[in-house]
Order: sequence, then C-alpha cells, then structure tokens
Amino acid sequence: MKLSKNRNPAVPGFKAVGLYCGIKAKNVKDLALIVSDVPAAAAGVFTKNRVVSPGVTWSRRSLKSGRCRAIVVNSGNANTVTGPKGMKDCEVITKKVAEELSIPQKEVLIASTGVIGVPLPSDMILQAVPKLVQGLGRSPNHWTNAAEAIMTTDLVLKSDRIQYTFQGKRITLGGISKGSGMIHPNMATMLAFLQTDAVIDAKTLKLALIEACDRSFNRITVDGDNSTNDCVIVLANGEAKNPAIKPNTPGYREFLKALTVICKNLASKIILDGEGATKFVTVRVQGGKTRKQAYLIANSVATSSLVKTALFGEDPNWGRIFCAVGNAGAPFDPDKVDILLNKNLLLKNGNPTNLPSQKLIKAMQQHEINITIDLHAGKEWEEVLTCDFSYDYVKINAEYTT
Amino acid sequence: MKLSKNRNPAVPGFKAVGLYCGIKAKNVKDLALIVSDVPAAAAGVFTKNRVVSPGVTWSRRSLKSGRCRAIVVNSGNANTVTGPKGMKDCEVITKKVAEELSIPQKEVLIASTGVIGVPLPSDMILQAVPKLVQGLGRSPNHWTNAAEAIMTTDLVLKSDRIQYTFQGKRITLGGISKGSGMIHPNMATMLAFLQTDAVIDAKTLKLALIEACDRSFNRITVDGDNSTNDCVIVLANGEAKNPAIKPNTPGYREFLKALTVICKNLASKIILDGEGATKFVTVRVQGGKTRKQAYLIANSVATSSLVKTALFGEDPNWGRIFCAVGNAGAPFDPDKVDILLNKNLLLKNGNPTNLPSQKLIKAMQQHEINITIDLHAGKEWEEVLTCDFSYDYVKINAEYTT
Repeated sequence: MKLSKNRNPAVPGFKAVGLYCGIKAKNVKDLALIVSDVPAAAAGVFTKNRVVSPGVTWSRRSLKSGRCRAIVVNSGNANTVTGPKGMKDCEVITKKVAEELSIPQKEVLIASTGVIGVPLPSDMILQAVPKLVQGLGRSPNHWTNAAEAIMTTDLVLKSDRIQYTFQGKRITLGGISKGSGMIHPNMATMLAFLQTDAVIDAKTLKLALIEACDRSFNRITVDGDNSTNDCVIVLANGEAKNPAIKPNTPGYREFLKALTVICKNLASKIILDGEGATKFVTVRVQGGKTRKQAYLIANSVATSSLVKTALFGEDPNWGRIFCAVGNAGAPFDPDKVDILLNKNLLLKNGNPTNLPSQKLIKAMQQHEINITIDLHAGKEWEEVLTCDFSYDYVKINAEYTT
Repeated sequence: MKLSKNRNPAVPGFKAVGLYCGIKAKNVKDLALIVSDVPAAAAGVFTKNRVVSPGVTWSRRSLKSGRCRAIVVNSGNANTVTGPKGMKDCEVITKKVAEELSIPQKEVLIASTGVIGVPLPSDMILQAVPKLVQGLGRSPNHWTNAAEAIMTTDLVLKSDRIQYTFQGKRITLGGISKGSGMIHPNMATMLAFLQTDAVIDAKTLKLALIEACDRSFNRITVDGDNSTNDCVIVLANGEAKNPAIKPNTPGYREFLKALTVICKNLASKIILDGEGATKFVTVRVQGGKTRKQAYLIANSVATSSLVKTALFGEDPNWGRIFCAVGNAGAPFDPDKVDILLNKNLLLKNGNPTNLPSQKLIKAMQQHEINITIDLHAGKEWEEVLTCDFSYDYVKINAEYTT
C-alpha cells in the first residue's frame, strides 16, 4: 500500500484558518474555520450513535438545503450530553460566524470534538470569531493551522490533496481529518472536511460521499467505539467550471475514484496515528459470497482485542485470527478457509500449514501487517484497516481527562 | 453483591483428580478427570463460535444421549485448528479413559483449553490416563487439584458449592470453572463443570442449565472475544434420592435458583480474575422495554474499550458510558436516560447533573463498580459483569505464546 505524505489540501476558492481560543491547554490550537468564496454544494455523513452532539443535529439539518458556505470546528470539547445549553451554543456560535462573514446562518455548519459531558465554553469561541474571520486564508499555513486546530489525541496532522483532469478541466480535491481513538465504522471521534472545486450538485455529491466512505472511513477501526460527534463533510464550489457531474456517467465514476482515494488516504492516516498504535494492519477478506459476509468477518478480526494484542507483542498466536473469523456471526465453511499473514500461508482449507513459528515471528516484526482470509465461497471482498492494541492505548485512555 | 469464597465443591457420588502430564511447563497441573460413581443425567451448553474444537464436537454429540459418567479435561492446549488429528485425539483419549474406567466410551466427555493451532501432545495424555484413574478421589484435595489442572492464565482456582433441602432431601450442587481472558457471552475460553446429586432427567437439566447460564456465564465479558472451546457441563447422579424434579414445578424453580446462584458465583470469580483486572464491574440496565434492549445496552457499555480504560484509570470521563449506550444498536429515548455510578447520579433525563468530579473520582476508586442505566421505558432488566482494561491485559495477551 502506498500512503501519500501530508499534502497542502488547498483547493481554489476555499480558505481556512486555525487558532487558539482558550478551550485547550495554553497555545494549543482549538478553533478552525473553513469557508468557500461562493455558496457550495454540500453533503455530509454522520455518526450512527444514537447519542449525538447538538452540533451533529445542527449540521444534519442545515445540510438538507444542500448548500453551505462555512464550517466552524472546535476541539477540546465535544459539546455532547451538555443539556439544552448544547444546542443554544450551536445557535449563537453559527449566528456570530454568519454575521462576521455576512452570509446566511443556515449556511454555517458546526462540529466539535473532545471530552463529552462538559459544557462548551462558548464565550471563548464567540470572542474569538472576529479574529478567526479576519485570519481566513491570511497565513501561508492556513490549512495546516486548521488541520492542527481540529486535533485531539492525534499526534500528527492529517491532510491530503488529489488532482485530475476531466474534459479539459483540472479538478482538485483537498481534505483534512482528525481521529486517533474511538475509531470505528460509522464512524468514531473522527472528523473530515473535504473540499473540491468540481461542478457537482448536492444530491450527486452525497451519493459519491456515501460510496467513498464505505471503502474508507467506514472501514477503519482503532477500538470498536463509535463516537457521538463524527462527521465527514464535502463542499463543492464549482470553480473548476467542468461540465456538471451526473450519476451513472464516466465523469461520476472518475470523481468517485478520486474522492475514494482521498478518503482512503485520510482514513489510513487516522489508523497510522491510532492511539498507541505500533502496527498498520489491513484485514482483507476475499472469496466472499456477499460483501456483508466479507465485511462481518474482516471487522471481527480487526476488532478482536486478542488479535490486536498478539500483533502488538509480535506473538505468533495466529489461532486467534481463525477464532475471530468464527466469531463474526456470519456463516462460512471452516474447512475451506485459507489465512495468510504477509504472504505466509498459515491455514489451508482449515488446516494449519505448520509454518515454523520463527518465520511467522519475523513476518510479524514488520510495521505493515496484511492479514488475508480467503473464504473460497465467491468473489466479494472487503478490507478493514486497524492497528494493534498496546500499553500506550490503555495509558492514553486511562488518563484522558485527568 | 456478596461473593462466596472458594468452597470445596464435593458432591456425593462424584470423584475428581488433577495432575501434571507434560503439556504445560514443569509441574503445573494440566490434566483433570471428573467421574460419577453411577451413570448421570447430563446437559451442556457450548460456544457459539463457528470454529470449534473437536472436543466440543465430540462432547456435543455424546451429550445427545443425556447420559455421562466421566469428563476428561486438559489445559495448555486447546486442540483447535489442529486438522484431522484433532478429532482422532479425542477418540483415542476418550477410548483410553473408558477402558481404564470400564465404562462405555460414549459416556466420556472431553474438553481442552489453551493455545490454538498447535497439535495436542496426546501421547502424554494417553500415558497419564492409568495414573489419572488410579488417583480418582484419592487425595483429600482431589477437587482442588482438578480445579487447578483446568487453569490457563487464571491466577486463582475457582470452585463453589451450594446446598438446599427439597422435600426432606438435601440436594448438593458443586462446580469448578476456569477462565480469565477471551471471556464473553456464549461463552469464552471458559470451562465449567457442575455436579449435583439431584434426581432430575437430562431434558429438564438442560432447560435449567440454559436458564441459569443466561443470568450468569452468558452475562460476563472480559474482552469481547468468544473462544472455540467453551463449555458448561452439568451432571446429576440422583444420589440425593429426592422426588424427580420436573419442569414448571416449585421443585424446578428451587433447583433453578440454586443452579443460577452457583453459576453466578463461578462466573463472578472469572471476572474477579479477569486478565489484568483491577475492578469488578456490574453494568445493570433497568427500565427496559424488552430484555433484549436491556441486554444490548448493558453489553455495549460492558465491552467498550473506552469505558474499561477509563475505569482502570479512575478517570471521571462518564460521557463515554452514555456514548456506549448510544452505540448499542438498540432504540431508546436519550432524553429519558438516567445513569448512576455507585449511587452517584451522573445523568438525569439525558442531562448531566454536574456532579463535582472529585466526588466521582472518589467513587471510581472503589474496587467494586456498579453502573446503573435506567431507560424509563419498561420493567425489564439485564446485568452484565465485566472488569477494567489495564496495562496487564495487554501484557498478558501480547506475550501469550512467547
């Protein structure tokens, strides 16, 4: 797998800013703003957790129009389980941002990430909004600052950009994301904000976003926990002046491919930065009868604490992989299963190959681990990205608020 | 909750033995045998993992007759994913035990626990069988030895006994169990062997066992992983000479109550001995509309890595509990939920009570943690027992085979 380095996610017609407003410890950026020069087509996908941040409720509602100009994001506080004050804070903050930008309030989305159950210090945010708006696109590092300002336990900032040509027009897609723990499909303490200058309507954009997420952000897991605040939002401002992208056309397929690549790159960066992670693990289930079967099995292996601790310890205890396959709640024939770890065949037709354990230990010492499970039942496949489970994961999460 | 100490699980008409046969490191007991003096009514429940040990397949099949005399158990090797040799080993070992005891082979059950994917050193077991049979009930510690011989990462042996009087006859139930990691409902690297002298037919016994497990062994979780080898087996030899226990009678309800108590005691001992556990945690969901809803939510909280690491760190990050409630995949009204931790009300009707965090930290410093979630939607309840997630859990599982 080739991972691109963090690239400047700048897209024509979009500006960003990130600064410190006082929520986090001193001088760690905690407030970001992304603005499109013109009203943009917009789509979003959100957490499936039944307890959600009022920010999620607000942005879901605003996105119904399919139009957006600005996204304001704070880190350090999730504004979740904060009572009626939570929604009130969303209202006053988006109102202030809209006023300062002279745009309609309903075109301002809001997102928050951080600790749950603590009232949002909205005064600090309100006070910082004029400075935030003044700073838009001013710094040569405006995207880096925004990417930094949405981080929580992330150790590295996450950004990416991709360009391609469609009917003579260059289309750019850029994005920033955050996420390190509470990471699990659909989704988990992860935020991603994507921008493109493509001409595409909001409905088609949403279709592409859902498809892209199902091969990227919805296929990563750090700890199996879904958060209350997750969202992926994409804005398209049409500055590329390409012929409009419509569903079921070659243009759609090209756009989807580019969107999937950038989503997958940003998703991989989250796994590489997984809380306490020392391994980058791809669990691939192939030969599936259905995608659902392949997904359930890949997900069961990728979320097994026993598999993940064995990977951390480089312990050749591969039986745990087959055990997790059996736990997936999906039917399969155990006597047909092959299991490979970094090209080492461990199980053939459900029988151990008795690979010398020294050979397996050597394979496990690599940073990148590919576990391939072939069910020999069909042609469907799914891949779930995960990391190992280390002392540091426990340390980070045992001391999160103290 | 009151936990009984380990009690001698002796039951009239049953004998046990445990010794070292060579599978584990030197002089750590690894082979046990439990025998009923007369053919006993027998019932069992087994793992729901689709990958199972041939020992599970063997014992499931043998239990169809509802009769059993002997159970041979080894630790240190799960005899799982061991190819065709696995089932052959079950055949030769049960045959040898049957010969030495002069009983039919089909009345001998077999169970294994330990590492997966390594061929069982069956020669060592076969060689030890004569000594095993000669040692039956000989030592004053015969039950302690048997309980020791089924341990893997367990730090303490687990046994319990309960007695009650039914229509003038004293009925005894005794049992031993093992389990520390890979513990999750339905079930997980856990074995339990229960004996009773009650007069009860195999069908009624099975009915009671299923009901008792659904309030005990199927409601504990250490790490969310189901194993390939789990079983709970109960034998009833009728030595108490009580009038036969039949379904839907007061006698059945009394027997079920006693069986549930002993199962719950043994299950609690597994959680107390959870790999790396420093907390004993009861997650109770009440006010449920259905038992399923209550179970899904209790299980989601009890398996959340984020909740479990926060409990380990005594970090008052209670928002994670509500987040896990929302992740359960069960419908509920977030605005009606109350959450309590050791009687401290944290959330009332979905709103935080703003309990001072010092008070919560103090409550979390206790060894026994009770999390109560009231859905205010009905009268059903479920309880799931769990432990915290510590550095030592990672350590134990990162170095299991090396």
